[in-house]
Amino acid sequence: MASAEHDLIARYFQPLASDAGALGLIDDAAVLAASGDDLVVTVDAVVEGVHFLATDPPETLARKALRVNLSDLAAKGATPAGFVLTLALRQAGDDWLAPFARALGEDAATFNCPLLGGDTVSTPGPLTVSITAFGRVAPGTIVRRDRAQEGDRVVVSGSIGDAALGLDVLKGGKAAAALGDDASGRDYLAGRYRVPQPRLALAKALRDHAHAAMDVSDGLIGDLAKLCAASGVSARIEAAAVPLSPVAARLLANGVAGIGTLVSGGDDYEVLATVPENRWAAFEAAAREAGVAVTTIGRITAGGAPPVLVDSRGQAMVLQRLSYSHF
Amino acid sequence: MASAEHDLIARYFQPLASDAGALGLIDDAAVLAASGDDLVVTVDAVVEGVHFLATDPPETLARKALRVNLSDLAAKGATPAGFVLTLALRQAGDDWLAPFARALGEDAATFNCPLLGGDTVSTPGPLTVSITAFGRVAPGTIVRRDRAQEGDRVVVSGSIGDAALGLDVLKGGKAAAALGDDASGRDYLAGRYRVPQPRLALAKALRDHAHAAMDVSDGLIGDLAKLCAASGVSARIEAAAVPLSPVAARLLANGVAGIGTLVSGGDDYEVLATVPENRWAAFEAAAREAGVAVTTIGRITAGGAPPVLVDSRGQAMVLQRLSYSHF
Repeated sequence: MASAEHDLIARYFQPLASDAGALGLIDDAAVLAASGDDLVVTVDAVVEGVHFLATDPPETLARKALRVNLSDLAAKGATPAGFVLTLALRQAGDDWLAPFARALGEDAATFNCPLLGGDTVSTPGPLTVSITAFGRVAPGTIVRRDRAQEGDRVVVSGSIGDAALGLDVLKGGKAAAALGDDASGRDYLAGRYRVPQPRLALAKALRDHAHAAMDVSDGLIGDLAKLCAASGVSARIEAAAVPLSPVAARLLANGVAGIGTLVSGGDDYEVLATVPENRWAAFEAAAREAGVAVTTIGRITAGGAPPVLVDSRGQAMVLQRLSYSHF
Repeated sequence: MASAEHDLIARYFQPLASDAGALGLIDDAAVLAASGDDLVVTVDAVVEGVHFLATDPPETLARKALRVNLSDLAAKGATPAGFVLTLALRQAGDDWLAPFARALGEDAATFNCPLLGGDTVSTPGPLTVSITAFGRVAPGTIVRRDRAQEGDRVVVSGSIGDAALGLDVLKGGKAAAALGDDASGRDYLAGRYRVPQPRLALAKALRDHAHAAMDVSDGLIGDLAKLCAASGVSARIEAAAVPLSPVAARLLANGVAGIGTLVSGGDDYEVLATVPENRWAAFEAAAREAGVAVTTIGRITAGGAPPVLVDSRGQAMVLQRLSYSHF
């Protein structure tokens, strides 16, 4: 059968489909074998010019497209089981596909999340990568976002705001100018935008100790607002407690970036969780053992109002926007 | 939380997410509850201008986007379990979204395949609907495409070539001109292009009796070539045996359409299966009971050559192309 689409799949994606459930990518479907687990399903698409830059290398795009989904699985307490890929391409050049597939395969191996299947279509529009990823949890143990309770600690992993600054750096904005010849600072921030770090090592600690969790993709405060709305609660967050990387802290101190940008900028792909006080010590210990930094940034409060971000004097801060919205 | 994206999901898609596993669409993930079954996963994307016309109504687009996936599940012998949706939109107008979501919800109910989750993104490019659908089969009973054996009957459901003619009708091509004021003929063909009929009623018969199966999406002969290549066999197909609708048969007889167009045109979404001779009577009886027409069009033969289409004198016919390829 001579078909360019078939050749493309054979050349670039069959080597990634080592899992038996992929049926060698020669079938129209894949199999997730019966197990005693619930299957967690998440889907995230990334669109050129919206979620990534046309100048982003194929390697980082591949990693980001998979990792934004792995980030969701981590926040739900799930262990990766595999993924399917829809690739909408304008053209199918080796120079783009080869590094894309290689990086995707590396990440699939790193995170033990094999390619199971997919669909490759041509489009006259922007390059779009849509991934549906699967994870497993013991029945009934998915960590939901609608279970936060008054008094819970509000906790985030890693650091917040780096990706928003990284996007600014890549666009040659104020952060780029302020960093001048600090190439390592610029590279760090750009890397945080281009290649998220899914916090899969935190999944078990979340399952064991968190009331609620989600990943931060559209901005910390906006995503917290969604978690609060789903749970019927509010939250009080201390701006000074939000964990920042050294370079982000420096740009904040210099006045290059405002705290509002950092807490609403999106693309963090950190875990946002609420942990009851009596599980905090155990959660923190488990996170430390997993090698993931976690920081308490505030508390869940009663009522249905949007979360409040307060400054060091306890005054509510006004944000121009809570998070990124597509429409 | 005021977000247009959030409002859009709440207004149009939450009403469809009645399944408990959808978590009300307020979470980043959905759950497919543990069961004793294997989970069959299929993914198909449809792109404006490639898989559907910009003039196609939102209702038929919604149905096609879901049904092309249900067609895959049917061919694999699976029972639908749910789907997730990625919608890449230029804008999000009520006049488009309301009928799209209503039709999608109707089909989800009709085929017992609930919406479980999704992602809605903005794009400057063509409207794209990508669906990942899930089905269940008893462990190890998925109907694969790489199990055809020499001597098997080659069988298709329904009729072939209508959709290719329907596309021609919608584009105002030769078929439209030839049909003149035969509005019902034009409507029938256009409907076959726009709204496939997934043969889910045939799933059990395939599981019970077929050696191999796949759905016909890219053209009968090209898809058969893929099945043969995967199985390490060839096939001999009698052109005169390929089931045609009355209107397609008329257009063929009139010389408006060639048999080559009909067997390579794509978008049929019929089931192509291979059934051993000793299971044929039982398969045919089960198909009749399921209310799905099935027709033997040829035999699986030995060897690795591409399938051969023969005319009424047994002469091999030469096709210009076997199937649609995106690249």
